[in-house]
Amino acid sequence: MKFDPIVPRFPCILHGGDYNPDQWRATKEIWLEDMRLARLARINTLSVGIFAWAALEPEEGRFDFSWLDEVMDLMAENGIAAVLATPSGARPAWLSRKYPEVLRVNEDRRRILHGVRHNHCYTSPVYREKVKNINTKLAERYKDHPALAVWHISNEYGGECHCELCQEAFRKWLKKRYGSLDALNAAWWTAFWSHTYTDWSQIESPSSIGEVSVHGLTLDWKRFVTEQTADFMKAEMEPLRRLTPNVPCTANMMGLYDGLNYYRLSEEMDIASWDNYPIWRSDESDADTALLTSMVHDMNRRLKDGRPFMLMESSPSATNWQPVGKLRRPGLHELQSIQAVAHGSDTVQYFQFRKSRGSYEKFHGAVVDHVGTEHTRVFREVAGTGETLEKLDAIVGTSKPSDVAIIYDVENRWALEICQGFKHNKNYIGTLKEHYAPFWKSGISVDIIDSTKELSGYKLVIAPMLYMLRPGMAEKIEDFVKRGGTFVATYMTGYVDEHDLCFLGGFPGPLRKVLGIWCEELDSLFDEERRHVEWNGTRYEARDFCEIVHAEGAKIIGTYCEDFYASYPALTVNNFGEGEAYFVAARLDEQFQDDFFGMLIDKLGITGAIKGSLPYGCTAQMRTDGEDCFVFVMNFTPEQKSIDIGDGGKSMVSGEEIKGSITLPPWGFDIYIKRNKEE
Amino acid sequence: MKFDPIVPRFPCILHGGDYNPDQWRATKEIWLEDMRLARLARINTLSVGIFAWAALEPEEGRFDFSWLDEVMDLMAENGIAAVLATPSGARPAWLSRKYPEVLRVNEDRRRILHGVRHNHCYTSPVYREKVKNINTKLAERYKDHPALAVWHISNEYGGECHCELCQEAFRKWLKKRYGSLDALNAAWWTAFWSHTYTDWSQIESPSSIGEVSVHGLTLDWKRFVTEQTADFMKAEMEPLRRLTPNVPCTANMMGLYDGLNYYRLSEEMDIASWDNYPIWRSDESDADTALLTSMVHDMNRRLKDGRPFMLMESSPSATNWQPVGKLRRPGLHELQSIQAVAHGSDTVQYFQFRKSRGSYEKFHGAVVDHVGTEHTRVFREVAGTGETLEKLDAIVGTSKPSDVAIIYDVENRWALEICQGFKHNKNYIGTLKEHYAPFWKSGISVDIIDSTKELSGYKLVIAPMLYMLRPGMAEKIEDFVKRGGTFVATYMTGYVDEHDLCFLGGFPGPLRKVLGIWCEELDSLFDEERRHVEWNGTRYEARDFCEIVHAEGAKIIGTYCEDFYASYPALTVNNFGEGEAYFVAARLDEQFQDDFFGMLIDKLGITGAIKGSLPYGCTAQMRTDGEDCFVFVMNFTPEQKSIDIGDGGKSMVSGEEIKGSITLPPWGFDIYIKRNKEE
Amino acid sequence: MKFDPIVPRFPCILHGGDYNPDQWRATKEIWLEDMRLARLARINTLSVGIFAWAALEPEEGRFDFSWLDEVMDLMAENGIAAVLATPSGARPAWLSRKYPEVLRVNEDRRRILHGVRHNHCYTSPVYREKVKNINTKLAERYKDHPALAVWHISNEYGGECHCELCQEAFRKWLKKRYGSLDALNAAWWTAFWSHTYTDWSQIESPSSIGEVSVHGLTLDWKRFVTEQTADFMKAEMEPLRRLTPNVPCTANMMGLYDGLNYYRLSEEMDIASWDNYPIWRSDESDADTALLTSMVHDMNRRLKDGRPFMLMESSPSATNWQPVGKLRRPGLHELQSIQAVAHGSDTVQYFQFRKSRGSYEKFHGAVVDHVGTEHTRVFREVAGTGETLEKLDAIVGTSKPSDVAIIYDVENRWALEICQGFKHNKNYIGTLKEHYAPFWKSGISVDIIDSTKELSGYKLVIAPMLYMLRPGMAEKIEDFVKRGGTFVATYMTGYVDEHDLCFLGGFPGPLRKVLGIWCEELDSLFDEERRHVEWNGTRYEARDFCEIVHAEGAKIIGTYCEDFYASYPALTVNNFGEGEAYFVAARLDEQFQDDFFGMLIDKLGITGAIKGSLPYGCTAQMRTDGEDCFVFVMNFTPEQKSIDIGDGGKSMVSGEEIKGSITLPPWGFDIYIKRNKEE
Repeated sequence: MKFDPIVPRFPCILHGGDYNPDQWRATKEIWLEDMRLARLARINTLSVGIFAWAALEPEEGRFDFSWLDEVMDLMAENGIAAVLATPSGARPAWLSRKYPEVLRVNEDRRRILHGVRHNHCYTSPVYREKVKNINTKLAERYKDHPALAVWHISNEYGGECHCELCQEAFRKWLKKRYGSLDALNAAWWTAFWSHTYTDWSQIESPSSIGEVSVHGLTLDWKRFVTEQTADFMKAEMEPLRRLTPNVPCTANMMGLYDGLNYYRLSEEMDIASWDNYPIWRSDESDADTALLTSMVHDMNRRLKDGRPFMLMESSPSATNWQPVGKLRRPGLHELQSIQAVAHGSDTVQYFQFRKSRGSYEKFHGAVVDHVGTEHTRVFREVAGTGETLEKLDAIVGTSKPSDVAIIYDVENRWALEICQGFKHNKNYIGTLKEHYAPFWKSGISVDIIDSTKELSGYKLVIAPMLYMLRPGMAEKIEDFVKRGGTFVATYMTGYVDEHDLCFLGGFPGPLRKVLGIWCEELDSLFDEERRHVEWNGTRYEARDFCEIVHAEGAKIIGTYCEDFYASYPALTVNNFGEGEAYFVAARLDEQFQDDFFGMLIDKLGITGAIKGSLPYGCTAQMRTDGEDCFVFVMNFTPEQKSIDIGDGGKSMVSGEEIKGSITLPPWGFDIYIKRNKEE
Repeated sequence: MKFDPIVPRFPCILHGGDYNPDQWRATKEIWLEDMRLARLARINTLSVGIFAWAALEPEEGRFDFSWLDEVMDLMAENGIAAVLATPSGARPAWLSRKYPEVLRVNEDRRRILHGVRHNHCYTSPVYREKVKNINTKLAERYKDHPALAVWHISNEYGGECHCELCQEAFRKWLKKRYGSLDALNAAWWTAFWSHTYTDWSQIESPSSIGEVSVHGLTLDWKRFVTEQTADFMKAEMEPLRRLTPNVPCTANMMGLYDGLNYYRLSEEMDIASWDNYPIWRSDESDADTALLTSMVHDMNRRLKDGRPFMLMESSPSATNWQPVGKLRRPGLHELQSIQAVAHGSDTVQYFQFRKSRGSYEKFHGAVVDHVGTEHTRVFREVAGTGETLEKLDAIVGTSKPSDVAIIYDVENRWALEICQGFKHNKNYIGTLKEHYAPFWKSGISVDIIDSTKELSGYKLVIAPMLYMLRPGMAEKIEDFVKRGGTFVATYMTGYVDEHDLCFLGGFPGPLRKVLGIWCEELDSLFDEERRHVEWNGTRYEARDFCEIVHAEGAKIIGTYCEDFYASYPALTVNNFGEGEAYFVAARLDEQFQDDFFGMLIDKLGITGAIKGSLPYGCTAQMRTDGEDCFVFVMNFTPEQKSIDIGDGGKSMVSGEEIKGSITLPPWGFDIYIKRNKEE
Repeated sequence: MKFDPIVPRFPCILHGGDYNPDQWRATKEIWLEDMRLARLARINTLSVGIFAWAALEPEEGRFDFSWLDEVMDLMAENGIAAVLATPSGARPAWLSRKYPEVLRVNEDRRRILHGVRHNHCYTSPVYREKVKNINTKLAERYKDHPALAVWHISNEYGGECHCELCQEAFRKWLKKRYGSLDALNAAWWTAFWSHTYTDWSQIESPSSIGEVSVHGLTLDWKRFVTEQTADFMKAEMEPLRRLTPNVPCTANMMGLYDGLNYYRLSEEMDIASWDNYPIWRSDESDADTALLTSMVHDMNRRLKDGRPFMLMESSPSATNWQPVGKLRRPGLHELQSIQAVAHGSDTVQYFQFRKSRGSYEKFHGAVVDHVGTEHTRVFREVAGTGETLEKLDAIVGTSKPSDVAIIYDVENRWALEICQGFKHNKNYIGTLKEHYAPFWKSGISVDIIDSTKELSGYKLVIAPMLYMLRPGMAEKIEDFVKRGGTFVATYMTGYVDEHDLCFLGGFPGPLRKVLGIWCEELDSLFDEERRHVEWNGTRYEARDFCEIVHAEGAKIIGTYCEDFYASYPALTVNNFGEGEAYFVAARLDEQFQDDFFGMLIDKLGITGAIKGSLPYGCTAQMRTDGEDCFVFVMNFTPEQKSIDIGDGGKSMVSGEEIKGSITLPPWGFDIYIKRNKEE
């Protein structure tokens, strides 16, 4: 399947990034130099206006678009698509001073001072009005501008406000959700510790100096924060949607940031986009970093159900806020960029084009360094990347189908983090990664989806630690298995409902039937403790969690080797309808993950982007337009690697036909077109 | 000696725990099921009403006892003793909302929001009135109820409030204590750093944003917090004492919690009780955990001068708030329960009977799990424990005499924690444990007492790190030794008086005479440093603290081996009157503790519960009614152990006569009756 | 060169320390005993009145100098010089109560409570008035007192206040500094994140709940804090300067404390003084502690351009606030005292003479312990030190010339700490120490100076990590090299100007010419990573930082051994005018420091206090009156060491002639007079 390009008049991979000409208004000759350098770097898009509010509206009601007019014109003249931002990420000082209500109130109920960024109240009517006002002006002024390509809504939404306006909005939201206090009290189990609410006004958001013990409240507050952010974003977008109905809107997200449910937030956008800042160490450990990064790309691709996303930010060199800003080794920058495309991005964008001269981010990697010339290693790496991207037009809009889905549910993550019990650190993200790894290492495409998404198209659905079952999820899983799907669940699954209320009558609650088991107790091990599980004649190491399970119809295929639960079931499979449901009772080692999912891959006939096996630190990913397949082979290690690509195809990089065993240099990659599409 | 049973009509070990039927009012059928399950689990007591305020008084002045009536009736019908709680541990939201003064003010002077629990102002007249009011209603309603057995006052008193009401109460308390500002200034040494108070209103409680440097102030504030809590508790009890003069009152305490002086608080109670949550690892390290737990039991037994106490809470399985909630291995639950009885508890009670469905504690171990049936391992362990307890009626009310006392003085602990000098971490509790260990390992009973208790009945009194000598304590020690007692003191003893003012004229201050030494300097070692001490031809390792001591009449029996104090006294003994006073100048290793106290045990003819030695991780403890002795032998290790019990006696568990070498399984125990009482 | 004695009528090394008779007013017999003990300890100075405000002005406007009169008279009678303090370090409670504006406001904008010390607002007109008032009274009363020798202004100035008075003063200071908001906005690069100020009132000091991202603001705030403190100090001194023009003023500083720029603060004093609290471990690691301590002495000597400074405080025994208060081994106290004199102190003073009885510092080391007698080891060590000091009259006023200067610039330190990039921990102080070490180990004198000081007299100037180049500094360095000086710079040099704005056009900015290089990128390594550099046939280890450099005229004399910058320059030298400028591109190991600076020492003919080499942990330092040289040889190890002192001279300690190989005991030293001055 093939989607339209993000910007129809730019049917190519967008290459560019954040650009802040407003910081250089005193030396406008630099703007011209920027255009020259951008062209040299093969840049075709720049994101402007982020944090430009003070420049656009220096005092209340007085607007100055003259400089932005010039910049937009320059971009148009130079064939550069403008990703134009609304400036709400940071407000001018005069706004905070005149309307203190726009300043966020922290969870400890102290109103912050003006400063930094990303810290306004999402509820404040004043802030919404001021934002809507300037957004309208922007849309009115540039709606027909030839450079305008994409709306970049605010910047990295995040955080929460606990002011009285937000408290009232929260109560209103709760009233709508629950209808009555009785329903709310029941859902939140408030009889515990005498927390019964007898008036809506008694409800306050969680606070380190107030309420933290009512988990239903905490969960609903987190949901409300996402809803309120989405509502604010919709208010931001209203004039844009109205005045520029054909210009797509996106808001750059932050990967695994857990303050917002991005599955929900992205529903309101046209395109998903995210900012990717992996911590490469430029050594063997990068394989692990690459794997996690791939997983997040796979999540972003699914936010809009497979439509290509935007890699809105990445650093072309060291990232200034990381504990160690190691230089990117030659080639790694291009590899990181290509990785995004391999997983479904149709852009490679940077923060930032030119390094700022002062303040917080002046040492963040950029295309153009303080020296101001093209004669730097980083500039050459960027230009080289641009050169490669120019060869990938055919990939624009292509999709990336997967037979495998892993459930990453943000509400489940919240619930696990709130959960008081078992072990403090549940390590949900690490567990997801461990389940993603066998597929990445085999070059098999995986979708990362949440509980709201469709399961029916997959051969295999894996739900690690699905502690919370949201409404309808159990039924969806049952239906999936009944119709022939293969489902894998683990320890700590099916404990609570959407309110964090425990299922009565035995875990895994409504999944007890489809899994054919009852989980009696969960043994938590101290960090250094290990147990073992035997499956198929091999002993695997278990750590952290060992659930004590009773088979109720399921077949026991693996057992514990020691302790008082020796010989108890540790791995079961239940035949259910046309399908099978597996249960893995303990947190097992990497070898188990590889062997167990390798067995399922074989059994279900799931195929990867290439046929053979891949060496350590390498993966292969594939995109397709429904006819041609575009295969990416990537080496995330500092060593040269050989990969057997079988019949291969024509390299989009070199233009040569490649096949059989090919050699990738350190941090090397290749992309080839496989003419015979495999489904 | 034998005391009356806690509840005369229940002359058996009470077995049960916290029960929250108020959380299940919407599904009352569960109440009936609870009664069935309680009987199955051999439970004869349940604690109700804890945190039930919102259910009992849903709005101000409107009371609803109907549900509690039903529950109390059900309990009575099922022969279950009610430990009935006052609900002050958590207040309804309407109360906080209407009377904000009841909300505690933190030490940084910020009033907290409503939420969580255990966070009311102890001074607030409104809160006192509201509590008295509901307590009166409870007492009036249930004073003649057949289920009512014990009053459970509030829950785990703790914390402190710094509101203006508390400040005023503190000043009033100080006025009474000191009479004049001159006296206070002298006691607190306020000439230091210009802290002289010239008006009572200048005095404020310690604060991280205010005063932390006046140690006398900090100490007095801590004393005041205990007194104010005791005063609040007395106000809570007033209607109960008046209306139900024969129902004993207790407040569940928290072991080594140092926010309150339990020796003082328990003076106001009829019975001591505590909540015991050891972190068992179910491996070899459990011996150490067992030892510490025994020590705290021995403290609780002495709070009411030997009267049996209540084990008010313990977890029948994993404890949800611990960093790792490891499952209790088979047998360990029963062993932990029996351990409490061995040290003087006449109850084995749990938090909680039935797991709550939602909120903070839903995964805390309980007799009845979310599955809701008796068919769980934990339920069977509890029922088995109940079965054993039913055989121990003869033990109810018996005492546990000791020849040995160790001083654990909470005021001394406070002073050591405030103390700026030597090493930041003084490790007072660890030091107490090291002095307790030789006796526990030998099955010798120890009383843990504070400076206010009588010394005269003991053969041996040990005062580790008695840095602060409270008024009269030195005289009491002198008198004890003079009359033939053996006293052991250590480094960092006798430095300050009750105001944390240093004794002038040479340490250990007023103990200089009885110990016959002068302590010139205290050398503090870095963590990894070691020195050595030679005594009796053996070299022992010293760490942390090496005091440099001069004998002034005492006999030097051990000396330092190296450093500039080589050959200086490290162990001395002073003959004083009929007795002896030992001084141990350095923090020595476990071997020294065993050898040195082993020597004293032999010399003083102190005997243990059994004659022979005990294997690693095992102890023996004895209770007696003055005629029969009830000997508990316990194995806190995951290995089977053999113990020689000599003549032995009749096992209360099996009913068989046992003697000679008996075998205890992992986490096993036995209890036998030794007919010939040994004094 | 020889300076006048600090107190002309005391032409000897001052020996004494803090004395608080105000704490013992109730037992004045102790004052007399103190005089006896002071004489026994060879003490000739005592510092009084520190923190005595409550005693001097017990209520507003009522003064009581009677007790201080007595004390001053006693001191005069006993030949003891009074270092008389102004009492502003801690205020009476009545003052805080009546004038809350004197209470500091923390950076999170919360006003603190009364308590502790060193926490007043430096701007408050009321506080300034009250301080001026009592200082005037003190000066008037004691201006002709025979004991008065030195004014001790307040105590350890430090911290900052964020109250509205301070905010206004800050804005006023900024207005004067920048003239216009446009200039300020440009200097602070406020276009970043929309931070442009459009009204002076919008400017607020940095705050964890407000602004932290504008580095120019942060830097200017830190400068303002120093200026405001200096201004407060000047206001304190005004009556003293007026009434006692011949009595020198000093304020005791705290070594490497970075809250204030001591180079600036000391400009306002007559004498520099500091409080020295090294953490001696009394083992091999003390060599390192001694080196750092020497470096700080060398900084303090340069604060007033070489004039002898005062060691205002040091502990004669354990220091109570350190994590481990290990006792000083015999001899170490005297060695530490002599070390100060060796580096240019003309005093050896203690905190404290007599231990206070209560409160925070009661266990801080003192000459007289709580036992109250002279019969302690510590007292004997102090008396012995006094005896030695009495032999050193000839050294009073002598100077300590150096051929080598190391730049320690406090503004550069602030900028490095604010700097977001490369690695979080820049370790500026550690880097300074590593550059100081080769000289200390060779007995070569070093001046520690900042960017405001003259360079012209030195043979060698080393500027480690001079990230910020203050105005004129580059020109001064160019001039220094041009005239024949040797200059050494390192990685991370010349990045920003005084506003923390990056130099455009290539690092090291204005030093690019004199160093003959361009620094393209800085590679930051993870802590455990290492690279190597080859110079002169030897491979040295690099860690943390490897700068990638291009020679532009400089000669490449060392290169990287591996990674993608293998064979790139790592060490360069540029001939510039008559001199040479070296650049060290990586953070190299101790061996490199020794070899590289050893090469320069030889090349430049720099000589040490003795000719031969010194064993591990030993140093030699020299003072001179322009004719005689006073050579100090010191052993900071627990082992005896032999040192070859060549021709030697007459020992001021023993009075004997010493030469050739002499033996120093553990923590031993000697001082001899070398008659033939070496320049």
